[in-house]
Amino acid sequence: MALLTRITGPRDLDRLTLEQLDQLAGEIRTFLVDAVSKTGGHLGPNLGVVELTIALHRVFESPKDRVLWDTGHQSYVHKLLTGRQDFSRLKMKGGLSGYPAQAESEHDVIENSHASTVLGWADGLAKANEVLGRNDHVVAVIGDGALTGGMAWEALNNIADAKDRPLVIVVNDNERSYAPTIGGLANHLATLRTTDGYERFLARGKDLLERTPVVGKPLYETLHGAKKGLKDFIAPQGMFEDLGLKYVGPIDGHDIEALESALTRAKRFGGPVIVHCLTEKGRGYQPALQDEADRFHAVGKIHPDTGLPIASSGADWTSVFGDEMVALGKEREDIVAITAAMLQPVGLDRFAKVFPKRVYDVGIAEQHAAVSAAGLATGGLHPVFAVYATFLNRAFDQVLMDVALHKCGVTFVLDRAGVTGTDGASHNGMWDMSILQVVPGLRLAAPRDADQVRAQLREAVEVKDAPTVVRFSKGAVGPAVPAVGRIGGMDVLREPGTDTPDVLLVSVGALAPMCLEIASLLDRQGISTTVVDPRWVKPVDEAMAPLAEQHRVVVTVEDNSRVGGVGSAVAQALRDAGVDVPLRDFGIPPRFLDHASRAEVMAEIGLTAPDIARQVTGLVAKLDGRFEGTDAQTVDAVQPARD
Amino acid sequence: MALLTRITGPRDLDRLTLEQLDQLAGEIRTFLVDAVSKTGGHLGPNLGVVELTIALHRVFESPKDRVLWDTGHQSYVHKLLTGRQDFSRLKMKGGLSGYPAQAESEHDVIENSHASTVLGWADGLAKANEVLGRNDHVVAVIGDGALTGGMAWEALNNIADAKDRPLVIVVNDNERSYAPTIGGLANHLATLRTTDGYERFLARGKDLLERTPVVGKPLYETLHGAKKGLKDFIAPQGMFEDLGLKYVGPIDGHDIEALESALTRAKRFGGPVIVHCLTEKGRGYQPALQDEADRFHAVGKIHPDTGLPIASSGADWTSVFGDEMVALGKEREDIVAITAAMLQPVGLDRFAKVFPKRVYDVGIAEQHAAVSAAGLATGGLHPVFAVYATFLNRAFDQVLMDVALHKCGVTFVLDRAGVTGTDGASHNGMWDMSILQVVPGLRLAAPRDADQVRAQLREAVEVKDAPTVVRFSKGAVGPAVPAVGRIGGMDVLREPGTDTPDVLLVSVGALAPMCLEIASLLDRQGISTTVVDPRWVKPVDEAMAPLAEQHRVVVTVEDNSRVGGVGSAVAQALRDAGVDVPLRDFGIPPRFLDHASRAEVMAEIGLTAPDIARQVTGLVAKLDGRFEGTDAQTVDAVQPARD
Repeated sequence: MALLTRITGPRDLDRLTLEQLDQLAGEIRTFLVDAVSKTGGHLGPNLGVVELTIALHRVFESPKDRVLWDTGHQSYVHKLLTGRQDFSRLKMKGGLSGYPAQAESEHDVIENSHASTVLGWADGLAKANEVLGRNDHVVAVIGDGALTGGMAWEALNNIADAKDRPLVIVVNDNERSYAPTIGGLANHLATLRTTDGYERFLARGKDLLERTPVVGKPLYETLHGAKKGLKDFIAPQGMFEDLGLKYVGPIDGHDIEALESALTRAKRFGGPVIVHCLTEKGRGYQPALQDEADRFHAVGKIHPDTGLPIASSGADWTSVFGDEMVALGKEREDIVAITAAMLQPVGLDRFAKVFPKRVYDVGIAEQHAAVSAAGLATGGLHPVFAVYATFLNRAFDQVLMDVALHKCGVTFVLDRAGVTGTDGASHNGMWDMSILQVVPGLRLAAPRDADQVRAQLREAVEVKDAPTVVRFSKGAVGPAVPAVGRIGGMDVLREPGTDTPDVLLVSVGALAPMCLEIASLLDRQGISTTVVDPRWVKPVDEAMAPLAEQHRVVVTVEDNSRVGGVGSAVAQALRDAGVDVPLRDFGIPPRFLDHASRAEVMAEIGLTAPDIARQVTGLVAKLDGRFEGTDAQTVDAVQPARD
Repeated sequence: MALLTRITGPRDLDRLTLEQLDQLAGEIRTFLVDAVSKTGGHLGPNLGVVELTIALHRVFESPKDRVLWDTGHQSYVHKLLTGRQDFSRLKMKGGLSGYPAQAESEHDVIENSHASTVLGWADGLAKANEVLGRNDHVVAVIGDGALTGGMAWEALNNIADAKDRPLVIVVNDNERSYAPTIGGLANHLATLRTTDGYERFLARGKDLLERTPVVGKPLYETLHGAKKGLKDFIAPQGMFEDLGLKYVGPIDGHDIEALESALTRAKRFGGPVIVHCLTEKGRGYQPALQDEADRFHAVGKIHPDTGLPIASSGADWTSVFGDEMVALGKEREDIVAITAAMLQPVGLDRFAKVFPKRVYDVGIAEQHAAVSAAGLATGGLHPVFAVYATFLNRAFDQVLMDVALHKCGVTFVLDRAGVTGTDGASHNGMWDMSILQVVPGLRLAAPRDADQVRAQLREAVEVKDAPTVVRFSKGAVGPAVPAVGRIGGMDVLREPGTDTPDVLLVSVGALAPMCLEIASLLDRQGISTTVVDPRWVKPVDEAMAPLAEQHRVVVTVEDNSRVGGVGSAVAQALRDAGVDVPLRDFGIPPRFLDHASRAEVMAEIGLTAPDIARQVTGLVAKLDGRFEGTDAQTVDAVQPARD
């Protein structure tokens, strides 16, 4: 790491020779494999953009010029070149974010990990430069996968409209998002790639990889030396130039000299220009290249030589869902599955293996997933769209106006719901149970364990005239939490053990074990507690209000924004029924959460059994009048944590 | 109307000769101008698709084949040909919807008026045909304007991926949405149009229109006769074929024979195919053709000969905003404006005239409007994105993840908020105050009158580190509602006249006069009422809880979904402060609202002063214990209307 450790900012790159830059690229690859295998993180995407990032920071002057990364998980190299080389606590509390972060560096702009936004940001920044008379440059790096998102199209359409507003778009074309990129665009990019120069590049690269299958510097240097003579060239420009965008490429994305040459010309062009770069996800790391599923898109802790996971995980929510989908698919021929470029991460790879003609990968296109689901349902099928909870936000209008308004039987399965933690603010699935509350007719299930995932998925796909949602957490699924009774459609998880119970505790989804712990803690205080799991949290069960009326206080606990969530819905249902029993709703406070482990985040926001038990105890004490006329301090403690 | 009245369904078209079809087209134009000038409605778009609709229904067999209309306001001709010829109550309660409606006809599929959805629906329906082994056809009609929306791109990318799944896309290219279509795509479509045949068509059409500037049949027949010899042909296919989509066109969209020929070939093609049709918005109606702003996109009641409005309206919310934007623009050079293809309808035409370089029409691309606004703000400007409230749903993820997460000073101005009525379920702006509640840091203003629109817009653009929202109603703005006091940041609109008031009435936005009326009605019952307008409804004012504590009951009234709206936010703020005063929240019930006038809808959902006053009276009576032990009927009346 002789060179890398001396790079404190982009301008330190200026004085390096081309040979030194090649050496630096090798050092960075070695660093990435070493560092990310210890912490976990997005390995494959970053191995693919080493040379590209070096070239960008040599040609453009960040932060005066804006270097923008779409989705942001490929910004590790950018971090290394902008003064951030301590990766020991990557994605951990207090350590580096796994995405760009304005708080970390003036070189970072877009923090959001939702894909396809970069061209819109770039358009706005370029317009601001124009209005304010600045000559600064804006360069946006976007993957071919992210180009399948509608936002990218909307932006391209606008960018192409201003012929003399400078803006450089780098298409980082590795033919993949998680999985290979789909659709007409991918086919078109393939056409652009099919040129003599590119064919030669590929053949040579493959040959070399076969001869020197080792990690890091030696392979890279050999490969680079062999490609030096390759010049970039103008290919048939196709649809980009049809839109009015200058097209440069394809460029060998691992040839620093070629990249610098192309980027320099693009920088001087004076209008919108696309630089089409061909890169290889997982470049230089054999275990990644051999993984056809996702090229080590994101890994946990792995052995750096073999790429094998160090700790294997047990059953997780995703695989419980995935297996049940296969079972359902065998029973019902009308069930089809949809993914937005994440077949494997959402567990649909199993379904796809058994029913390849009944699964649709629509690209990074959540809007299309939802609206085409409305079409599929209207056509007589029952689509199941599995997606990370946070990404469903992209399709809110389609869930409402296409699926719900048209009374379509479509099931949305929200994975990674609730606090996910280490991926930071934009990956937490904390919005769905709030925004979906307003969708008329929609039914929302929050299963508490594996059995309930299976059972509620089955109940969901039985609904033919409304959208259904099944949302569950990330990671390992806990042991079964048995019901001890049923009231209305709600499972009773714990009886209060008295005819005059104090607290009705409404447990949502995976928080059931925590709620049972809260009840135990309250029990020690002499506070009797009923714990119910509504199973379907929307609509609020009709038995809720009468049950609440039998208690002195209602407490809701959910792994979702406190604002407008299940607690608010229960409170409204009680008001509507004229039941004015005091209610306290615990959930995620209305702010963006910094990256940290799930447990750390939950502790920080007060979503732990002791915190909640303490506050409920204070509330009951207040109702008992034990603190009337005394200092208000304890009563204040009744307030849920807000930030 | 000799022919039109004999058409009871699409198959009645089969036996007509080409000459009769021409006559029918003329009759339809006469009918449309006559009918829509009496009721108001979308005139221009329907005049443009007369021949296209006839040809579609002759070539395809609806409802077995699915004929799908994007946005839906151009479906009047479709309605006339599918058994719906009573336009006397168009868009009125009990009359025909202004959009397709499944309840009206088996020939209707998509009811949603949000643009750019049709290709997604078509993709889903075509996939269902494939899975179920049906040979039915799917044909989607989309305007060039709607192609600027990201959903269209996502769908095209998917449709192009399946080479042998039949799907016909008709691009209804009139070079406009409301205003002329913008962007790289529009430029590309222009290139496709620039062919010998099209030039001749245009020149001839223009010449003829000048010689025979009359409405309906004579003009049309003359024109048609002259164009009969024109053949459709294959033009340079450009980006559509780059994506892998078969392209046919451009076709003269007013030549039934040419249309039928092209559509028949497209139907037989056996894969995805685009039929590019050139139409003229407002075709055959001189007043529309002379209106360069929007070609009579949507009109109120007009005189059929002159096209002049019969009743002119007074000051409306939109123009108050539009004028204030001009004033602000003069004071602050950093203020820029954004519209999603609706410059005039949202009142930004005035700003655009004065500051043409500081306004951006991004196409029908709400996502891009929001994300590029984040870029503009990060670049040092203050963007104001004016949009219909219901359409902001499309940009929820961008408001949250791009604008709010990055603490960007962006102002969203939501026009047509609340119940709009006649345009039906998808045009009501009843979601914004719910879904925006979850956005951390976002501040939301609901001005009650023109003065407050101006004042709160000014307050909004002062906020530099968070998104701000200003939402107001459709149509005429009422007289000023003066404040009689201020508590915290809230305007007091009415003092209770006693030291022990009963009701705290929280009035949201334009409902202030109604709330004052409620207070008067309660006064007659001996119930003393404070009326406050929070002005900024998010976050809930800190003075709210202490004020609420001084009353026996809190009542909120809002022109938004009851679910998760202002009422829920106030209720949560009271809970968090430990204030357990009973609260009742009045708003729009959680269901989709059928088209009717605003007043009719408000009456139907119980959002009227007498309804609310009666329910509040019942609640206070219950609190007084006046009905304890008696029949529960009156107490039940306390419940807000739910459906």
